[in-house]
Formats: sequence, structure tokens, C-alpha cells
Amino acid sequence: MSDEVKNGSRTLPVIDCDIHPNPVRKRDLLPYLDDYWRDYMIASKFRGHLPTVDFTIPVNGGLRADSKTPGGGPACSSVDFFKEQVMDEFNYSHAILFTDGTFFISGAPQREMATALAPAYNDWLIEHWLEKDPRLFGTVLIAAQDPEAAAREIDRLGSHPQMVQVGLGIHAPYGGWGDPRYHPIWEAAVRNDLVVTFHVTVGPTGLFKSGPIGPPRYFVETQSTHSLTYQAQMANMVFAGVFEKYPDLKVAFIEAGFAWVPGLMYMLDTQWRAVRREVPWVKRPPSEYIKEHFWFGTQPMIEPETKDSKHLEQLIDMVGSDRLLFASDYPHWEFDSPIGALKGLRKDTRDKIKYYNSKKLFKLPDSVNLVSSQGD
Amino acid sequence: MSDEVKNGSRTLPVIDCDIHPNPVRKRDLLPYLDDYWRDYMIASKFRGHLPTVDFTIPVNGGLRADSKTPGGGPACSSVDFFKEQVMDEFNYSHAILFTDGTFFISGAPQREMATALAPAYNDWLIEHWLEKDPRLFGTVLIAAQDPEAAAREIDRLGSHPQMVQVGLGIHAPYGGWGDPRYHPIWEAAVRNDLVVTFHVTVGPTGLFKSGPIGPPRYFVETQSTHSLTYQAQMANMVFAGVFEKYPDLKVAFIEAGFAWVPGLMYMLDTQWRAVRREVPWVKRPPSEYIKEHFWFGTQPMIEPETKDSKHLEQLIDMVGSDRLLFASDYPHWEFDSPIGALKGLRKDTRDKIKYYNSKKLFKLPDSVNLVSSQGD
Repeated sequence: MSDEVKNGSRTLPVIDCDIHPNPVRKRDLLPYLDDYWRDYMIASKFRGHLPTVDFTIPVNGGLRADSKTPGGGPACSSVDFFKEQVMDEFNYSHAILFTDGTFFISGAPQREMATALAPAYNDWLIEHWLEKDPRLFGTVLIAAQDPEAAAREIDRLGSHPQMVQVGLGIHAPYGGWGDPRYHPIWEAAVRNDLVVTFHVTVGPTGLFKSGPIGPPRYFVETQSTHSLTYQAQMANMVFAGVFEKYPDLKVAFIEAGFAWVPGLMYMLDTQWRAVRREVPWVKRPPSEYIKEHFWFGTQPMIEPETKDSKHLEQLIDMVGSDRLLFASDYPHWEFDSPIGALKGLRKDTRDKIKYYNSKKLFKLPDSVNLVSSQGD
Repeated sequence: MSDEVKNGSRTLPVIDCDIHPNPVRKRDLLPYLDDYWRDYMIASKFRGHLPTVDFTIPVNGGLRADSKTPGGGPACSSVDFFKEQVMDEFNYSHAILFTDGTFFISGAPQREMATALAPAYNDWLIEHWLEKDPRLFGTVLIAAQDPEAAAREIDRLGSHPQMVQVGLGIHAPYGGWGDPRYHPIWEAAVRNDLVVTFHVTVGPTGLFKSGPIGPPRYFVETQSTHSLTYQAQMANMVFAGVFEKYPDLKVAFIEAGFAWVPGLMYMLDTQWRAVRREVPWVKRPPSEYIKEHFWFGTQPMIEPETKDSKHLEQLIDMVGSDRLLFASDYPHWEFDSPIGALKGLRKDTRDKIKYYNSKKLFKLPDSVNLVSSQGD
């Protein structure tokens, strides 16, 4: 019996594709490093994944105020507390985890260190989270600075039954994700039947530091314009022919919302028709690739002013209600609850976003027995 | 008798707010420079306004193939040929001119030279174009590198009856247009009752050279993502409180279309509600400032694929059909004809975009007598 049948339509569970677990202490990563990098991390007093953010984030240092664990650990560092505070509270059937290292690894200037750290995060995630509950699913974090090593890491872990995606920051180490140097990564993702998921990057070239007009002036400004990098990367990947070369590649864009997609998609179609001679390897209108290859996390869910609220469903129709994935971004301060973020949507749209789209995209197993065994 | 009454609804004329006239020879600018800069431009063999564009533009070097003048002059260098090829052909009542220098001046690294050149372009425009036909309207081009000098230039020409706007590139010389260093420019524009119009910038920090993921890879990519800089500037200006300080400031964004506005506007509202504590000088939801202070040129007009064409009117409704201005970008290759670009729109929407919105925003005089005297 599937989740939806067992639970009935009124209790359709939630799949959340954007949860960020953390080690309690950074030294919890040390057992997963080889001798050289273990010594290096100890000697350098490596303290974590997020490099300094110059902005003063006006909300509790960027974290949900209630997300510290009862034992005093950092936000989202306890499987049990996460299950109680989020999974049970909101009736989750599956949660897809993205270690905080995601934000950092892709933006790290030190290629070799990044390449050594990514597998440590992955092994830590498997042992400390995935093995604790079969409703938890993971991300193969990679350092794209060395695409061949990244591909090997994908092959190493891609067959793990709870690994459902490859994780990258939206800022590439060099230029756009359309560059052929990254082909080995897409090849490995397709070979292992994993979605490639791009998330906000923090680092020297990432958010807070750069943008089309230089560093932003305010936190609210950078927070409102996450999508600009995603827009540039979408154009870059489409025109470089990535989706002609990898027709089975599936891409998820997380933490930039989706309301920007129609405007960009229609502009890409318009310009492609005008100057497609420049990119003859792009055989079809860009919107066709986008509608076949891209999915979008809902978070940060836009909430237009009341006078504009009727436009939300129109924008969803333009993107396609089957392309949106509920994402909470727990434990960060911008946490979207599945109740608040999806309220006001038509039921069929809401059900797709909160459950069916992620279930299908990530090929997640029914979790009914697991839910039963939890007493739900 | 007003234009619309005389012409009747079927022949409502067109107002085009994006025409780029050029001097026949760059030395035509020399008479408008002082001795020092005249000698400097001669000695440097100043050849024009557009610095090298590394991309090979796949369409006729970037210009409409038929826009060279019959006398062999460069594109849009003859008032008479422009009137014949565009104004008469498409029944224009007014055209708003933006010298090609626009693309260059704001991006020029040499502040003093830029500040000297801008007035030369302006005086050349008045003598060679505005004085030739009262249906032509002009742009006070300024070099924002020196905001106080820019304000003086606005005051020098702001009362000219055919000057309707201040012209800037969308890339600021430094950071975002929200920076207080640019306040003297907004003050002068408001004092002179001129719209401030931002146009694509070419130059060291402009299009082709930079973007949120570094230099773009293809011309079609940069051409499709003009709006990213506009999006960043809109967020920057709103959050820096420009529209609280200058409640009468009117801004036009030209050559980036408009379909990106709803997605950004709703995200700005959402994030402002969450962290407005950071920017207490922003008193109202960003969408209110945007709907009161911004207008958008249509060009490049999006033409979604047939399956998506129903979404065009929805996007226009979100932005507001009273905020869009027909723009052709003549004589550049992307020229949008008022017939092709506006086809398929509801008649009331089309009439506002092709005529009424620009007429009201720029406070343009009725041109009926002028049209009559031309034998139309």
C-alpha cells in the first residue's frame, strides 16, 4: 500500500528536499579523512563549512532560533531531534539531506583540500544520518574543482540505495556549468541515475561576495537575488548544449525559488530563434530543454502581496506544477513550513509539490511500513 | 485635436522610446569639446563609442542590414533617412533618441574624459537631430563617474523642451545605483522633471565582460540575460531607500524586457517582510515602489513558443500594462517593429504600450499639427 493510499488524501505526507545536517563538532569529520588531510585539518583548526559572511544576518545568526539540539549541539546535528521537530511535526515521509559543506566545497579555492573533504562529508552523512533511518536520503557532495575526482566519488557512492542526488553549489569553480570541463560530472550522474542538484554557494565567488553589479549592499538584497546566478547558469548550460549531450541529465535548482523561470525561459526562446546560428548544437527551443531537464525547489516560497496573490498559480502554471519540489531549508532561519509555504494553492498543485514530484524525480521508495513502524 | 482623435483608433501612431542616432564621423563631436579635449580626441584617434566587443555578433555586426544611409553613412546617421525608413513607415508621432554614446559613457574608466564627452554628445544631438524635427525628443546623456558634474549637465539642458530624460548605462561606475554618491543625479532629474532612463552598458564592467558567473560564453547567452544587471539594480535601489528619498523619481529600464519583473518583485516583497529590520528606511513593500516608480521598454519583446503564448498577457498584467513602453532599438539588429512586437496583444494593452504610456510618462506634446505639416 503506497503512502498516499494509506494516509488518504487529507494526510498525504511531505517530502522535503532541502535539509542541512551538521556534525556536532567539526572533528567528527576527521575519521573520514586520510592521514595527511586529518593532520592538516587539525593543524589548521578547521572550524567549519561556512566561511565568514560579512553581512550581519538580521535573524538569529541565520539559523532557526529553536534548532539547537536539546543537548546543546548545533542546529540540525541530532537525527532524533530533527525527526521530532520536523519529520513528526509535519508528517514527513522522506527527507533529502544536504550537508552544510555543500555551501562551501564548491566555492573553496583550495582544490585538493575540497576534493579530500567532500568524501569525508559523504561518509559522515551515511554513518551518522542515513544509517539511522531509512526515510532519510542523501546527497553525494562533490568538489567540481577536480571533475575527474568528482566523477570517481559519484561512482563510489552512487549505488548506495539512499543516495539520490549529486550536490553542487550554483557557482562553478570556473565560469559557467556549461563548460565542457564539467562533462565528467554529468556523465557520472547519468551513469548512476542521480539527479544533479545545485544549491546556493557561499565563498569567495559566491553569494554575499559577488553579483552582476558587484557585492550587494544589504543582506535582504542578496537574499532576494539568489536567482540571478541560477538564471545565468541555466542560460549557460542550455546554450553550451549540455542537454543535447546528456539527454538523461536531470537538474534541480534549490534555494532560488521558481518565479523567475518564465521570464528567462521566454527570453531564451526569443533570442535562440534570432541567433541560433551561433549555437547550432542547440537543436530545440530552450524552453523544451528546461521543461524536460529542470526541477525547482520552492524555497524561498514567494508570497506576493494580497493584491497580487492571484498571480502565484499563473506563475506555477508557466513553470509547470510538476516541476516544483517542496523545500524547507531547515535549520536555516528562512525555513518554509510545508503548511505555510503551500497554503492557498489548489489541492492538486499542492499535493504534487509536497509529495508526488519529489517521489517521482528521486525515485523514492514508498515508506508506508516505516511510517507504520513509527506508530503513525 | 489630439493624435489619437485625429488618427482614429485604427491609426493610432507610435511612440518609440529607443532610437540610437550616430554622428556620421566621430569628428563631428569635436566642435562641442573644449580645446583640451578636442586635441586629446584628435591625438588619440578616438573612433567611437563602442569599445571592442569580443563576441562575433552573428547578425551583420550588430546592425540592421538596411540601416546604412543612402549616402553611405553609418546606421542611423541621417535624420531624413531615419524619418523615411522608420517614422513614416510605422506612423511614428514621436521618437526618443539615445545617442550611441550611452552605451559607452557610463562604462568608461576615464572619468574626466567621460565627463567632457557627455555634453558634446548632447549638444551634437540637439543641433543635428532635435532642431531638425519637433517630433524628435532627446536624452541628457551624463557621466555618473562625477555625479556633481552630471547634475550640472542635467541643469544645463533639462529645460530644453525636447529633452525628456536623463540617460545612464545600467552598470554604475561603482557598485549599485542605490549608492548615495548618485543622489545628486536623482535630485537634478527630479528638479528638472526628467525621467531617468537606464540602458544596456557596454564597457569594461558592462555586458559581454561580466555577469554573475563571470563573462558569458556566447553572444546569445549575454543577449538573453541583459535583465540580470537590471534585476540587481532594482533590488539595490529599492533597498537603499532611493524611492523614499526621491518620491518623484521616475525610472525607465530599457533593453531588458519586462517578463522578469513579477518574479523579482514578489521575491523582494517576501524577503522584505522577513528581514525589513535591516532596512527600516524602506517603509512599504518593494512592489509598491516598483509599480509607482518604474517603467519598462518592451524590447527585446519576448515571443514565447506557441504553447506558452497565453502567458504573455498574464505577465503583462503582473507588471501592469500601463508600465510598458514600446521600444524598437533602431538601428540595432534586434530592431522590434511596432507591428511585429505588439501583435497578438489585446487592443487596449497594445494601444497603451505603443502610444499612451510614453505620451504620459514623458509628457510629450500632441504632434497633430506637426504630422499635418509633414503631409501625413
